Formats: sequence, C-alpha cells, structure tokens
Amino acid sequence: MTAPLQPSGKRIWDRCEALARCSEEPGALTRVFLSKEQRAANELALAWMREAGMSARLDAIGNVVGRYEGTAAGAASLMLGSHLDTVRNAGKYDGMLGVVAAIDCVHTLNARGIRLPFAIEVVGFADEEGVRFGATLLGSRAVAGTFDPKLLDSRDGGGASMREAMTAFGLDPGGIAHAARQRADVLAYAELHIEQGPVLEAEGLPVGVVTAINGANRFAIEIEGVAGHAGTVPMQLRRDALAAAAECVLAIESRCAREPDLVGTVGRIEAAPGATNVIPGHARFTIDVRAPRDDQRRQATVDMKAAIAAICARRSVKVDIRQTHEGKTTACAPWLQDQIGRAIEAEGLPVRRLPSGAGHDGMAIIDLVDIGMLFVRCEGGISHNPLEAITVADAEVSARILLRFIEHFNPAH
Amino acid sequence: MTAPLQPSGKRIWDRCEALARCSEEPGALTRVFLSKEQRAANELALAWMREAGMSARLDAIGNVVGRYEGTAAGAASLMLGSHLDTVRNAGKYDGMLGVVAAIDCVHTLNARGIRLPFAIEVVGFADEEGVRFGATLLGSRAVAGTFDPKLLDSRDGGGASMREAMTAFGLDPGGIAHAARQRADVLAYAELHIEQGPVLEAEGLPVGVVTAINGANRFAIEIEGVAGHAGTVPMQLRRDALAAAAECVLAIESRCAREPDLVGTVGRIEAAPGATNVIPGHARFTIDVRAPRDDQRRQATVDMKAAIAAICARRSVKVDIRQTHEGKTTACAPWLQDQIGRAIEAEGLPVRRLPSGAGHDGMAIIDLVDIGMLFVRCEGGISHNPLEAITVADAEVSARILLRFIEHFNPAH
Repeated sequence: MTAPLQPSGKRIWDRCEALARCSEEPGALTRVFLSKEQRAANELALAWMREAGMSARLDAIGNVVGRYEGTAAGAASLMLGSHLDTVRNAGKYDGMLGVVAAIDCVHTLNARGIRLPFAIEVVGFADEEGVRFGATLLGSRAVAGTFDPKLLDSRDGGGASMREAMTAFGLDPGGIAHAARQRADVLAYAELHIEQGPVLEAEGLPVGVVTAINGANRFAIEIEGVAGHAGTVPMQLRRDALAAAAECVLAIESRCAREPDLVGTVGRIEAAPGATNVIPGHARFTIDVRAPRDDQRRQATVDMKAAIAAICARRSVKVDIRQTHEGKTTACAPWLQDQIGRAIEAEGLPVRRLPSGAGHDGMAIIDLVDIGMLFVRCEGGISHNPLEAITVADAEVSARILLRFIEHFNPAH
Repeated sequence: MTAPLQPSGKRIWDRCEALARCSEEPGALTRVFLSKEQRAANELALAWMREAGMSARLDAIGNVVGRYEGTAAGAASLMLGSHLDTVRNAGKYDGMLGVVAAIDCVHTLNARGIRLPFAIEVVGFADEEGVRFGATLLGSRAVAGTFDPKLLDSRDGGGASMREAMTAFGLDPGGIAHAARQRADVLAYAELHIEQGPVLEAEGLPVGVVTAINGANRFAIEIEGVAGHAGTVPMQLRRDALAAAAECVLAIESRCAREPDLVGTVGRIEAAPGATNVIPGHARFTIDVRAPRDDQRRQATVDMKAAIAAICARRSVKVDIRQTHEGKTTACAPWLQDQIGRAIEAEGLPVRRLPSGAGHDGMAIIDLVDIGMLFVRCEGGISHNPLEAITVADAEVSARILLRFIEHFNPAH
C-alpha cells in the first residue's frame, strides 16, 4: 500500500509568492480592500479552488468562497480560511497562508477521491486588516451577519466612500446582507495562520493551538501645548506638546513591560507645526494595547490613561484621550482546541497552547459559530513586515495537520 | 516751537496688518520665498518706501531695497531692515516690524525735510526663515556676497528648484551676484526686531540692545529598529524605533534644562511605517540647539550625541546623527550697541543688554559690515505662532529710538 497523497509545502509556498505579486507597489506587498490588486488575488484563489475540485465564487462583499461538497450535496460545512488583504509593506503569509493551505487540503482530498460526511468551505476574506477604511474584519463580519451598514459611508485616504469603492469593484453596496451565513449551515470555523510572534520559534515547535485571541484597545491621543520659537523660549517656560508625547510613549512602554503577555504600541506620531525651529504646539499619537485577559488589559488601560493625564498636567499641556476601538478576548472553543491538538499529536509533535496577540477573522466569525486556530512558526517573530518568513517544511507539516484535523473532524463533540 | 514729527505706532501697526494679509492661507500667515504672496508684500513695501521719499527697487534675489539719499547724493549708507518672509502659520511682527519701522523712520525724516551726512537704505529681505528651500538667510547672504550658487539646485516640497522658482518670479538665477554690496558703500547694519522671547516682558521693558545672536546647531537623526506586529512581539523583544526616539527627545530636553540660556528643540518627528498596529521600524527627528556661548553650545551637542548613541545602543537600534547646520555666535559691534543704548537712554529708559536666541539677517550681513540690533518686547515670549503680539505703544517707542539712533549715528566710532 502506498502512502496517501499529502498537501505540498512547495505548492503552498509558490502560491504565497504568486499572491505576493498582487501588490500596489513593485518590490513591496500592499493589497487593500476593493483594489485592483485584490481582484487579481481573488482570480488566483478562485482558479486554485476550482482546480481543487471546489465550486467557487465571490460573495456580496468580495470574499472568495469555495465549496467542496460532502458525501451528500448541500450538507452543513466545516468552514476554513483566512484573509487575502494585507497591511502596507506586508509579509507574504499573514492571512494568505491560511487560505492557500486550506485549498491545498481540499486539493489533496479531491486527488484522493475522498468525500466527507460534511461539506468543506474555504473563504478568502476580502478585508481583515482594515487598512483602507480604518474599520477591520469587514469580510468576516459580513459572513457572520454583523457588518454595520453605516461603514459604507466611511472614506479612504483618497476621499472615496466604501459604497463608491464597492460599486466601482462591481459589487452592490445594498446587498452585503446576502454574504451572511446561517448558523445551521456552518458546523465550525478553523483557521491556520502564521503566529506573527516569537513563541513557537523560541520553543522549537512548528505549530501550536490557539487558546484565545487577545482583546485590544486602541486610543487616539491629542496633546495641545504652546508653539514657540525654538531659540528664544527658555526650557523652563516651554509647553512642548511633543516632549509631553515622548514622555507618554515611554510611560506606555514601561507599564506594558511590567507584565508578561501585555503589549502596548505607539505606532503613529505627529508633531505640529512640524518645523525644525519651532517648538511643537500640538502632538498626536495612537496607542494599541493587547492582553490575553480582559481584566489585565482593562487595568493596564486605566493605568496608562492616568499616567498620560499626570504627565500632561505636570507639563501644563491639554490632553484628549479618545478610545477608537475595544475588542474583547475571543476564546477558541475547547472542543476545537482538542481536535486540533489530537491532529498535532498524530504527527508526533507536542501540543503547545498559546494565546494570539494579533486579531483574526475568528473575532467576527465567533458570532456565527465556534472557532479554532492552528498557529505556524514565524521566523524571528517578525510580522507586518516584508521580513515575515516561514519554511516550506513548516508549510507542509501544518497543512498535513490541518488535513488530519479535517479528516477526523467531529461536530458531535 | 512744536515738537518734531515722530514715527507713528498706529501706522506701523496697520502696515504689519496689511503685510499679514499677504498669505498663502486665509486666516493664517504663511509667506515663503519667491511666492505670489511675497510679490504682494514686496509691492506694499515698495509703495511705502516711495511714499517715504525713497527710491525703491527689487534687487537680484528679490529683496526690496529703498534708498534715501544723504546731503550728498551717492554717499555711503546706514543699512536698516529685516525680512519679509515668514515661517508657516507665523506671527505678524517677526521680520516685518523691522522693515516697516525703518520705513517709518525715513518717512519721518522726509516729512521733517531732513537729510543726514549719509544715505539710509532699508532692505526687506526676501528669505530669512528658509521655509521653502531649507537653507536660511538667502536674501541677506546675497547682499553680503556669500550666497552659495549651489543652492539654486535645491528643491522645494513640490519638486521645483530654486533656479526654476526664481525664473518664474521674473528674476535671473545667474545674476544673484549683482545683489552683493561693496563694503565701502555700507557704514553699518542696524535691525529692529521683536524679541521673540520673554525676557523684556518679564522685566517690564519695551526695548533692549542685543549683544550677540546665539550660535546654533541642527541635526537630523534617523533611527532604524525592527518593525513588527503590535500584538505579538513581547515588549522585551522589541526594537521599537519610536520608543528610542522618545527617549532621545527627553534626554535632549533634560540636558538643555540643566543650564540657563541653552535651549534644545525637537520640532519634527516621524515614525514609519506609521500604522496604529505596527511597531515602528524607523523614526526620524530633528534637533535645534542654541546657546549664547559657542563653547557651551558645542559641549551640549557633544553630550546630547553621546546620550542618543547610548540610548540607541541599549535598545539595539541603529542611529545616524547628521549635522545639517552649524552657525557660530554672531557678536553685535560694541560701538553700535553703545549708540543704540544712548538712543534708549535719551528716551528715558534703562538699557537692557541681552543675547538673541533666534537667528537674524545680521548673521549674514556681518560678513559685509558691523551689525547692531534693537529688540522690542514680545507678549508672552511667543513667536513663530499666530499669537505673536506687540503693542502700538511699543511699536512707537521703539521706532522713536531707532530714529534717534539714525539721527545721531556716527560711523567714525
């Protein structure tokens, strides 16, 4: 008896490379919602799905949806997938790897001639990162039926509304509700994703089971001091908005460094008027805070806001702290964690459970159905960066584990 | 006998208001080198000069030059003036006050029917702030004969070269040398300028005599860390370029706060890639350092560079520190300080001598001839800001003192 066909790490790798070429900048990967680069990526995914034996289509918000029927046509499905959009100057695996690996699992089943007692669906979500319109998880929210139609009026940096962008893409902005799925039709959602952090690499493991997706808060901070001439205002009389912001940046960093698993980031900063010889009168920055426990995250945000207020009061500058996002921790279903863990053990590997520091489509899909996630080792823990890297071997072993999970998937937990 | 005619504070005030309306933005004052707003300001100054009895013209770099002949035509001149360009979102007095007050002094002499044994020239310099092309003192360097023709190739934010901008303005880029004056033709340079700092106001004085223009260094700092996902990289493993920059900002602030008269400013900062959910991999900022003593300033820059290097080494980020400007202290000639001081005493006021924290056209003109400066009280020490303010009374008393200085000017010191 010959060994059964298996997913191909090489094919997964090559397809991630092909998707990476669908970019708005030569030599860098940036692909945003409803762009012509997204259309090109969608065309690739649709073709690969059909080649794998699936029926494939775009849904009402532009997600790519492939379906591999079970032994009985029209059966409820195990939904797999991830997202096809990217951040600016992104890596090649964040999102794409999960879509391509899931297609490769179906490809393998189809090549073996196997149908399962349930259908398999693979979704390539159109927007998870939220780069173009600021709001994240647009594709998965549409599938979960939680897309807020008010978002259609939000505008991108060029002034185009989401409504206009959808129309230009050939989609009907009034029809997004048609992307929503029924609970009865979906048994579970499972996503393979690059870890985007350093934990698995540090422990020498190719894969891990995700326990939860960390909750997050985002804030926009605005500081108003007094602009002045850089040469003539003594240091003691200054109300320098940027110096205040700099002290806040360090306060955020030191508060988060005090506890494991808590992270806080200032990713954007601006000082105005922004001239070498003018003391900044205004400064703006953002904060992104994440933690695996909601209480831990909330206490950290309370402490950071108090520290910022104290710094600004001492420096006699005004501060406005506006929360722009709050997302609770999203737990992965224990029964899916267990079934993913058994697939890992069957490959002869230890089962490492870890939280996800990054957000994922499961945060939206959990409103439809239970979710599970399989993490793949990430070189150097580097993500949202062109240096993001995996190995062909890890692509292959993680896809084998995903396929094993699919083959043994038991919704009657 | 009636009191002699005097300069008018009200007329000076109104003319500063009129110049402030020559702006590229409604409701804010921004007027840069070779702009159509500069052309409008030049037209006003030329008309006021002619009304004051002067011949008036634009020189080869676009400076407005008015000449009031002495008792003998073609005599060497006492040069007065300041600049007509502004920073972005500027105050109404920085530069313009000195041009308008000097014109008012000549206006008064002319109304009295007085000619002096020397000519008077009033110059409205076309560029002192350096906003458009980065390099400062373009107008006064041309007059001093120290304009570097390589600057003609520098480009503004829109990509236009200075050469192109001069041609578009109607000037000949090849003819700048014609703006240079001969030493034998100029006896001294005296400038009235708003203090732009809080010293005179704190002491209840309308005017002061400048002892020296502080030297300055400017640096462009670039930090290279490692970008990464804001949710997944533990604080301990980060090489956050912005957090490093923030620590540098505070080190600069604290080093400068240790000594009186030393000031250091970070006026510009950028973090890249600049997304809320990405750890900044790059950061850039500028430093502007000034002090009244060259040795004090140099020691401070040595200390600051060492502090920045230490911060970046500890954080395992790369840093590049590039000096973009160094200007030595420019001393005001003691004989001009004395003659300005006598004019102040003659108005019944104490003579306060103080250094200038800001740069001025005299830094370039000193290569041609000795310089002197008269400072005017500045409300709240605020400058490079729309809140920059003087009073009509201070405009009038300072112009009276300038006129008295002119009337008693003795080049045979």
